[in-house]
Amino acid sequence: MSIAVGEINLKLPESAAAGVLLKNLYLSCDPYMRPRMRNSSGSYVGAFQPGSVSPLLSLSLYGVAKVLESGHPNFEKGDLVWGSTGWEEYTVSTEPGQLFKIQHKDVPLSYYTGILGMPGMTAYVGLYELCSPKKGEYVYVSAASGAVGQLVGQFAKLAGCYVVGSAGSQEKVDLLKNKFGFDEAFNYKEEQDLAAALKRYFPQGIDIYFENVGGKMLDAVLGNMRLRGRIAVCGMISQYNLESPEGVHNLASLIMNRIRMEGFIVSDHYHLYPKYLEMVVPKIKEGKIVYVEDTAEGLDNAPAALVGLFYGRNVGKQVVKVADD
Amino acid sequence: MSIAVGEINLKLPESAAAGVLLKNLYLSCDPYMRPRMRNSSGSYVGAFQPGSVSPLLSLSLYGVAKVLESGHPNFEKGDLVWGSTGWEEYTVSTEPGQLFKIQHKDVPLSYYTGILGMPGMTAYVGLYELCSPKKGEYVYVSAASGAVGQLVGQFAKLAGCYVVGSAGSQEKVDLLKNKFGFDEAFNYKEEQDLAAALKRYFPQGIDIYFENVGGKMLDAVLGNMRLRGRIAVCGMISQYNLESPEGVHNLASLIMNRIRMEGFIVSDHYHLYPKYLEMVVPKIKEGKIVYVEDTAEGLDNAPAALVGLFYGRNVGKQVVKVADD
Repeated sequence: MSIAVGEINLKLPESAAAGVLLKNLYLSCDPYMRPRMRNSSGSYVGAFQPGSVSPLLSLSLYGVAKVLESGHPNFEKGDLVWGSTGWEEYTVSTEPGQLFKIQHKDVPLSYYTGILGMPGMTAYVGLYELCSPKKGEYVYVSAASGAVGQLVGQFAKLAGCYVVGSAGSQEKVDLLKNKFGFDEAFNYKEEQDLAAALKRYFPQGIDIYFENVGGKMLDAVLGNMRLRGRIAVCGMISQYNLESPEGVHNLASLIMNRIRMEGFIVSDHYHLYPKYLEMVVPKIKEGKIVYVEDTAEGLDNAPAALVGLFYGRNVGKQVVKVADD
Repeated sequence: MSIAVGEINLKLPESAAAGVLLKNLYLSCDPYMRPRMRNSSGSYVGAFQPGSVSPLLSLSLYGVAKVLESGHPNFEKGDLVWGSTGWEEYTVSTEPGQLFKIQHKDVPLSYYTGILGMPGMTAYVGLYELCSPKKGEYVYVSAASGAVGQLVGQFAKLAGCYVVGSAGSQEKVDLLKNKFGFDEAFNYKEEQDLAAALKRYFPQGIDIYFENVGGKMLDAVLGNMRLRGRIAVCGMISQYNLESPEGVHNLASLIMNRIRMEGFIVSDHYHLYPKYLEMVVPKIKEGKIVYVEDTAEGLDNAPAALVGLFYGRNVGKQVVKVADD
């Protein structure tokens, strides 16, 4: 490894005259970044290319930023935005059409990496659009204290469902029950037999499973689904660090129980963002939905924060604070 | 094993005065019968109970029969019916409300075990209701020469799709291409690498997969699905004779490709039967849909016919002819 030290000019280069120059304030660590670190990506976005500084091929990710200079009609200097940015202090965005201008500023800005950004929309789309929860239905959320899971559980409670979540420590289980209002929660690491644990928490079976984990957890869930259950497949974080994915054995349950299992990518659904904001912003202000973040300070601490996701070190949504506004 | 020999009275017993007495003409051998032969059934219908002569717990199955005596207002002596009957020459049906009266008699009666019965409805519901095929889409059917597969392929062709099927012998592959009008077909037993075979037949990927097989085949398909693909999970015949099901590894494809995978049971959809008949009967008469059956003669040959399904011995829909009308 070699490090090159130099100076940069904080202005839009001619090659990106129609873009925007961003000062990054918060960067978001999200599980989907891991599969992009393989050559044959296997992810829904292309593989990162080590050494590349091209946007999207370098370590692009979601973040919150301030516009320092704009060549794009939708943005002007001083605007706050969220969307695709770089793993760096300053970013030249050549596709600012994909950035969202931040309108509601009376909430923590970092929320736009979470509840008011991509993870919030993920929870909303996966639960409401794919699973259509009905009052009284039984909902299970894995990785339930994470950026997405904590919201899925709270949204399902708002829909009148019975909600159980699992996470990997007592601290997280306490959060689920005491802060996020889940009906029940358990530490999956303390369960010898995941299927038996689910049977205990859902003696009548699971109507809706919000899948964040994959592998053994999915197998255990499949054995406990209820007739006409729905599974929103959001992610499979347990599989991302494996050489090859684990086998899932209980798929015949899809037939027996008439289950619909559907994968989705949140960016297909961003047209619903205004509708989502309309629902969620008042709920935040009224304290009816809460959000927990785990904040790393400074870009230097960002790599460890990202790696920590795959060991469950974060408690709540993992954010990196890069700079003050 | 002991065999009891006795005489029976061919009349409705008092305990089933509101039922019907049936003379079975054709019995249907179907893959779903295999999982019912386990104790912990693992099927969507209860386990068979050896020795039981109670309907549903004995070896009940689909068949075509003639009504010899009726205590039910919907049926009278001489009616032809299809639906749930027994693995025997005569059956007392205590739930005749579940039998379908046969109206169209100018087609082979045995068709009511197949194209005009449960397997036909299975193909119709799985393809049209679950997968909504659009003109030009790429459709793959496994177990494609079987009772359901041969119809899925032909229905998909009628919808303007490009259709490839797989089966387990050259004879079956020829049927698919020359009789059923599939665009392409291959013998899966001659492929070392199923995923590579699918890549060859679907260089652009698969939009719709009609799943009859499970296991390795499903894994190969998952690696070749197209964006927003649909998988109708009808059955997993490759798994029914295994002690425990194989693992499926490529489920992350559901996320990457936004795939919907849905299991179904045809009996949930029987309200569509009249609509289906309206579509399919004219097509049979015009020769636009053909149907191939493999007929075993006599009840004595029925067990071997059923077992043969799981070795792919049947060419076309496996029927047992029990008696003449």
